[in-house]
Amino acid sequence: MYQNKETKDTLSTAELGFAQIDLAREKRCGFPEVVYAEGKTTEAVLAIFEAQISHGIIPYATRVRPEQMEALKARFPEGVANAAARTFRLPARQGKKRGKIAVVTAGTSDAPVAEEAKETALWMGAEVVFIQDVGVAGPHRLVEKLPILLECQAAVVVAGMEGALPSVVGGFVPFPIVAVPTSVGYGANFGGLSALLGMLNSCASNVVVVNIDSGFKGGYVAAMIASQSKELASDEAES
Amino acid sequence: MYQNKETKDTLSTAELGFAQIDLAREKRCGFPEVVYAEGKTTEAVLAIFEAQISHGIIPYATRVRPEQMEALKARFPEGVANAAARTFRLPARQGKKRGKIAVVTAGTSDAPVAEEAKETALWMGAEVVFIQDVGVAGPHRLVEKLPILLECQAAVVVAGMEGALPSVVGGFVPFPIVAVPTSVGYGANFGGLSALLGMLNSCASNVVVVNIDSGFKGGYVAAMIASQSKELASDEAES
Amino acid sequence: MYQNKETKDTLSTAELGFAQIDLAREKRCGFPEVVYAEGKTTEAVLAIFEAQISHGIIPYATRVRPEQMEALKARFPEGVANAAARTFRLPARQGKKRGKIAVVTAGTSDAPVAEEAKETALWMGAEVVFIQDVGVAGPHRLVEKLPILLECQAAVVVAGMEGALPSVVGGFVPFPIVAVPTSVGYGANFGGLSALLGMLNSCASNVVVVNIDSGFKGGYVAAMIASQSKELASDEAES
Amino acid sequence: MYQNKETKDTLSTAELGFAQIDLAREKRCGFPEVVYAEGKTTEAVLAIFEAQISHGIIPYATRVRPEQMEALKARFPEGVANAAARTFRLPARQGKKRGKIAVVTAGTSDAPVAEEAKETALWMGAEVVFIQDVGVAGPHRLVEKLPILLECQAAVVVAGMEGALPSVVGGFVPFPIVAVPTSVGYGANFGGLSALLGMLNSCASNVVVVNIDSGFKGGYVAAMIASQSKELASDEAES
Amino acid sequence: MYQNKETKDTLSTAELGFAQIDLAREKRCGFPEVVYAEGKTTEAVLAIFEAQISHGIIPYATRVRPEQMEALKARFPEGVANAAARTFRLPARQGKKRGKIAVVTAGTSDAPVAEEAKETALWMGAEVVFIQDVGVAGPHRLVEKLPILLECQAAVVVAGMEGALPSVVGGFVPFPIVAVPTSVGYGANFGGLSALLGMLNSCASNVVVVNIDSGFKGGYVAAMIASQSKELASDEAES
Amino acid sequence: MYQNKETKDTLSTAELGFAQIDLAREKRCGFPEVVYAEGKTTEAVLAIFEAQISHGIIPYATRVRPEQMEALKARFPEGVANAAARTFRLPARQGKKRGKIAVVTAGTSDAPVAEEAKETALWMGAEVVFIQDVGVAGPHRLVEKLPILLECQAAVVVAGMEGALPSVVGGFVPFPIVAVPTSVGYGANFGGLSALLGMLNSCASNVVVVNIDSGFKGGYVAAMIASQSKELASDEAES
Amino acid sequence: MYQNKETKDTLSTAELGFAQIDLAREKRCGFPEVVYAEGKTTEAVLAIFEAQISHGIIPYATRVRPEQMEALKARFPEGVANAAARTFRLPARQGKKRGKIAVVTAGTSDAPVAEEAKETALWMGAEVVFIQDVGVAGPHRLVEKLPILLECQAAVVVAGMEGALPSVVGGFVPFPIVAVPTSVGYGANFGGLSALLGMLNSCASNVVVVNIDSGFKGGYVAAMIASQSKELASDEAES
Amino acid sequence: MYQNKETKDTLSTAELGFAQIDLAREKRCGFPEVVYAEGKTTEAVLAIFEAQISHGIIPYATRVRPEQMEALKARFPEGVANAAARTFRLPARQGKKRGKIAVVTAGTSDAPVAEEAKETALWMGAEVVFIQDVGVAGPHRLVEKLPILLECQAAVVVAGMEGALPSVVGGFVPFPIVAVPTSVGYGANFGGLSALLGMLNSCASNVVVVNIDSGFKGGYVAAMIASQSKELASDEAES
Repeated sequence: MYQNKETKDTLSTAELGFAQIDLAREKRCGFPEVVYAEGKTTEAVLAIFEAQISHGIIPYATRVRPEQMEALKARFPEGVANAAARTFRLPARQGKKRGKIAVVTAGTSDAPVAEEAKETALWMGAEVVFIQDVGVAGPHRLVEKLPILLECQAAVVVAGMEGALPSVVGGFVPFPIVAVPTSVGYGANFGGLSALLGMLNSCASNVVVVNIDSGFKGGYVAAMIASQSKELASDEAES
Repeated sequence: MYQNKETKDTLSTAELGFAQIDLAREKRCGFPEVVYAEGKTTEAVLAIFEAQISHGIIPYATRVRPEQMEALKARFPEGVANAAARTFRLPARQGKKRGKIAVVTAGTSDAPVAEEAKETALWMGAEVVFIQDVGVAGPHRLVEKLPILLECQAAVVVAGMEGALPSVVGGFVPFPIVAVPTSVGYGANFGGLSALLGMLNSCASNVVVVNIDSGFKGGYVAAMIASQSKELASDEAES
Repeated sequence: MYQNKETKDTLSTAELGFAQIDLAREKRCGFPEVVYAEGKTTEAVLAIFEAQISHGIIPYATRVRPEQMEALKARFPEGVANAAARTFRLPARQGKKRGKIAVVTAGTSDAPVAEEAKETALWMGAEVVFIQDVGVAGPHRLVEKLPILLECQAAVVVAGMEGALPSVVGGFVPFPIVAVPTSVGYGANFGGLSALLGMLNSCASNVVVVNIDSGFKGGYVAAMIASQSKELASDEAES
Repeated sequence: MYQNKETKDTLSTAELGFAQIDLAREKRCGFPEVVYAEGKTTEAVLAIFEAQISHGIIPYATRVRPEQMEALKARFPEGVANAAARTFRLPARQGKKRGKIAVVTAGTSDAPVAEEAKETALWMGAEVVFIQDVGVAGPHRLVEKLPILLECQAAVVVAGMEGALPSVVGGFVPFPIVAVPTSVGYGANFGGLSALLGMLNSCASNVVVVNIDSGFKGGYVAAMIASQSKELASDEAES
Repeated sequence: MYQNKETKDTLSTAELGFAQIDLAREKRCGFPEVVYAEGKTTEAVLAIFEAQISHGIIPYATRVRPEQMEALKARFPEGVANAAARTFRLPARQGKKRGKIAVVTAGTSDAPVAEEAKETALWMGAEVVFIQDVGVAGPHRLVEKLPILLECQAAVVVAGMEGALPSVVGGFVPFPIVAVPTSVGYGANFGGLSALLGMLNSCASNVVVVNIDSGFKGGYVAAMIASQSKELASDEAES
Repeated sequence: MYQNKETKDTLSTAELGFAQIDLAREKRCGFPEVVYAEGKTTEAVLAIFEAQISHGIIPYATRVRPEQMEALKARFPEGVANAAARTFRLPARQGKKRGKIAVVTAGTSDAPVAEEAKETALWMGAEVVFIQDVGVAGPHRLVEKLPILLECQAAVVVAGMEGALPSVVGGFVPFPIVAVPTSVGYGANFGGLSALLGMLNSCASNVVVVNIDSGFKGGYVAAMIASQSKELASDEAES
Repeated sequence: MYQNKETKDTLSTAELGFAQIDLAREKRCGFPEVVYAEGKTTEAVLAIFEAQISHGIIPYATRVRPEQMEALKARFPEGVANAAARTFRLPARQGKKRGKIAVVTAGTSDAPVAEEAKETALWMGAEVVFIQDVGVAGPHRLVEKLPILLECQAAVVVAGMEGALPSVVGGFVPFPIVAVPTSVGYGANFGGLSALLGMLNSCASNVVVVNIDSGFKGGYVAAMIASQSKELASDEAES
Repeated sequence: MYQNKETKDTLSTAELGFAQIDLAREKRCGFPEVVYAEGKTTEAVLAIFEAQISHGIIPYATRVRPEQMEALKARFPEGVANAAARTFRLPARQGKKRGKIAVVTAGTSDAPVAEEAKETALWMGAEVVFIQDVGVAGPHRLVEKLPILLECQAAVVVAGMEGALPSVVGGFVPFPIVAVPTSVGYGANFGGLSALLGMLNSCASNVVVVNIDSGFKGGYVAAMIASQSKELASDEAES
């Protein structure tokens, strides 16, 4: 049941034995399936990349372990490896950027998560502005960056500890903030719980939240918002 | 310090003694400040509404208590009161809708939170599609609604208990899902914690989360995304 | 006190000094005691296996450490070792299968827990169908597997992250689902808590839950249900 | 998409506006959809009952509020109301019982949850044995009841506080125990958390767990297991 | 043991039967014992007040219930009752103020806790500046108040929800911030837990924290710091 | 099974239908079964009292609701009712006291829990010394009471908030301290969790812990320890 | 202050610079201070042992690291080292045993914690009965051991997972049970939390609890109870 | 916006690419920015130190890793390295001490956190009194130290386990106590949670709390309080 001709397009699968690749994810959801490498063997990651490429998909892997990274670099020398972000991706097709997002961090320790957000958005074709170390204890540092920030259509704000930065950024901009809590901190941080709860309780109306340390999802949703933005549409009208 | 001519526009305040109204929120953030009525006296809510109106702001209040609601209806008979949502708003200016969103619920008990999301989006000028009672235990109910869902630019998905519905909806659509966990359930639901954790750990890449029972923020961010959407822009080009 | 002739049969014990083996577990509970190897020395595991064999019990060990596994393989070359599952068992007696169960996983990272469920059910004499990587974000993948699933008398559904898969499977089948939450995930997963709470709050009526990562108990109860099933009984009538 | 002729049977829905009734649940899952009355108006519950009856479904509602109960009794005088359990059901069709289960409680305070389990199983056609107040501090009380217990094909064991009873019962019987933690207790009971965790960590292999205070799900799964039991099948052969 | 002549002064007690009043608290700790009225009868509170007065102590009660408040006002008409703060105190001795503190709130709902902080500090002889509704989503509101804030020697910052305000205030001032988390909010606020964790993880070095909703302790410690301040000392030199 | 002649004595039961009374608890455990009234009807409590009396047991009930208390006082006018403790007991047999215990509280709000401990110990025949309001912030208050404290064979120490008092008392005495955490406090007290964790982590070696607000168990174990004490034995030698 | 002649005896201290040894602990509390080795250097442990010995104290150390153990064995060859318990003690003075306790475990993995309890009680002069592997899933194993158990004056019951064993033992004996939860288990065990909560909520009146894995405190309090027992006193009368 | 001439002084920044140094922190907040080394490369720490020195700031780093420590010692041989505290600082300018604080520990295992508090206060110019191992189980040890303690203007009290020491110290002194919970302990300590909750619920009015293991913040706020103290001011008048 559940199958007819139309289904073929939006629900086709490549059966690899140990995994079932969702070939129509891009058609259904706008972007292809991403490979979460953490629980997979190196061989599995390579096999999925090749299966995706053979179906015209540009692959992208997150949470790549060092030995997986080496194997990916050897097999796909044209790929882009980011050691801090633990990501590997094949380069996007040339063409117009699909919107612009900001990736903002509270402190230098939040960088790995921010890098994952950035790589994800780049793979999705977005332009990315990177604003680092503008935590709330030195509030003027953020204010200096407002002009660049206001050119974007969405922002990923990455913060650990009390996770207050998204609320502050949210009060200055007219677009959604995807807040990413990090596990940076110690003691009553409880592995990122303090930042997570802070962000969920944000008094700024335009702040939404993703999982602790999920730079991937932060970048994904921000880039998705930017890719469907009117700003972008009027840019296209100009070109 | 911090003040110069440009600031005047984006940072002006109306001092009411007990509260300081942020008059430039709309200019800075795209939409005016919303009145959270829960901790306020009826007099305070009325005073803020009148101050906002006198500055050309269309007011909107959430978490309105019954006695506040009566006073608001008496003072502003043209206003829109929604008892289930506990909201009161003055009607938006006539004009083209600013995008279309879906508000989707898992069960009938999630309705009050969904109503708050709907009212918020309507106040912001969005068109709202309401899809009720399509929880995951009867999966065909959602599938029947896919065509309407796919006409939107964002969706609010409201669910309690295990909070699985946003993941399932997310796998079918090419736009962001703002997931709203509700405190519907009992026992190991722990006041909405189960749905909240489920949504934060969603395996669908396009799912972001807001606070438990925060229909307001769900509707706000979904309508904000829709309001800046390319889809909408091309519609406008047509008009 | 508490002892009479009948007790001899259902309550006899083998005293090994460091442990007391429950010899009548099979008579009382249907299946023999299983050896949880984690907190035991290699010598203890070997001694228990030999004591069980000498009383006509077919032994089975879970959470076997690598050095224990080597010793078991050396001593009992006819045994079945499963490295992913960390289990070792002596082969079941030949004979008719005692029912059929499905072991279903949401993602490839759930495999080790699923393997433990499978081995447990095989040791108990059940037939096992293995369905991998059918998580809710690609919902058609499950639908394709429904025909095989519907031939079973019970299912073990293994999932981490939001743990939504058991609810979805539960809505399609007329038998109990034993849901096994896994610690797969990160951040607000909190070591499997998110999946555990999701499954406990499942909106599907036929979903019961066992401990995080307890593939053993998932397989045990599913196989127990299948072993006493009417379906099976009518099969037997046919044979 | 997703619809063809076969789907008609297993996926048909009755649209009531505020709710969508899953008419084919019984065909798909073995038993009809149950009405969770808590978040619904009295009118909604009555309307759903009538819609179900008109499609040949025998309705059953749980978590019924007193005013709903009165209305149900007035409209359906032949129905069975259980005030302690907060349930209302129309009587099952006459015919052979579908298996036998035990509902066992640790203390007298666990009775309401146990009553809900019992009513659910009766609605599903099971025979129910009720064993009360056999908590672990007086262990001989359980032992006296073993002969009746051993005639069943599954048991629901309801306990609050430390939740130890399912482990003890589990060690005496050859069938699955569905453990229902209750919120009975105080202090470090934390609303049933202590019993829930105790049951999830049960050292007995045949214990599975449902949500805190969920007598419904306990009774549902135990009756489902009993309904498909071989014991029962051989009984039928006799009849 | 433990008793000699010197002890008489710092360790004397008034035995009231149901309570033992610490008469030398002021000598030992700088300020007298405060009456926490919550768990006491009205008679007990009155008796303690009179015992304190008879020993030359100026009494002060917090968490006063309405019926206690009425009795206190009747017996001590010169006293200062604050209904919002739920406090009652006899007026301080005339004389120079003992330092100046600020009490700052994030939103109007935090007022009751802030009022308790204010009353406590007034009872201790401090001058109090009250700054309301300067939450982080409208950051300019705080900046406008900086000049008054900088005249203080300590600040109590009261905030619910994400609890970010103390961090922001802390980055602007050269004195300690006593952060008071409030239970204002809903959902993932978990009764003030989100604000508490946020404040404990504050990235500002000068932020310390007290119990949720403890306006009393916030005011107490801030006033104690101000009372021993150098600023104040130089003021005294001037007088 | 499990029954023989000896069992008759230690395992006999009175079956009341809704409850099974453990008649041999005193023989087995030293003291009779106690009636936990919270989840029972008034009729049930009366029936159990009469059944116990008819078997020569002196009954005692805890967590008695006001209407139950009235009924008990009417039926058993010789009984001892303690409204604060919510207990009702028939007077103990005349005779020598079975040891001496201290019940110590940190503050006046802890009194109800302490009263329950006291009543329990009196029912068990112990002599009870009551020491109130000696919390750690006024440390000399405890020191004054040391001589009386040192005449006991065990102590119950009742405290809320930070729960520090048992550690301090423990450092002064040569017998076990049964620490009872109370839910007195607010905010980060989390219903007694702070006191519970503090007591479990006590640095004093002789501190053991019971459930939050369980004055009953505190008094029970302290009186049990005192009843089997050598001190007592030598007293008996003297008499 | 606080010092007079009597104090000299009960409050004398040996100042070692990095630590202050409580020389009068034995006089005040019945037994000397115990050395918790975990956070100390090897040199510090040796120095404390020698200081204690020079004051006539028989030293005992817990949580001894391997390198500390080697140094202790070299310096004090007459000492008793227990590698499983991680304890080292000098032998007790010859003489009559000070009471008898039982140390009971649920499973073989609980042995290290039980060994620490045993060593502590032996150091304190108690006689210790060791009963292993009598967890509740095989309930007859405990019953067989009842006769030995009933010769004791207190018991330490050590269990992980659901922690049900103390409740069951408590129902059979007339003396206090000191329950020690262990971190044995996985998943929803949450590091011993499940056993801890289970034990705190025990339905048996004579069960008290100590910290997770605290074999030390379990053995300490049980031996303290036994040392002051009447049973013992009458033994002495006999001798 | 936000910038004018006055801002230059209080809001200037040094942009290092990977970090933005807050040059005016000392002018705004009284003390310079501190380098949290944990998430930084050795190169980054060295670069920040040199940038701070070039702007006339005396640098101080906490949570220094061993390889960072080596590099700092090599580059700045005049610096003060404290291995236990994991801190490195350049020596303060010569001159009068800025107040006196006490750093007090409950046990020897709390030393590393206490050392970090001490180093921080020394860097800030305070005089520091170090009082070790005065936990509440040996209460006379603290009393002996009272005279020294009473010469201070603030105290940092460091304790793990039940965290009771700050309450006890608080009851003896007329100045604020900054309580620092440590993660010292095991089991129900839950990584410092027990001490944290105990301190937040302290019954002493003058106790405020910082994050678990945050010796830094404890020392910082205590030294800040002391630096602005009247005591100090009158000292200065004397000089």
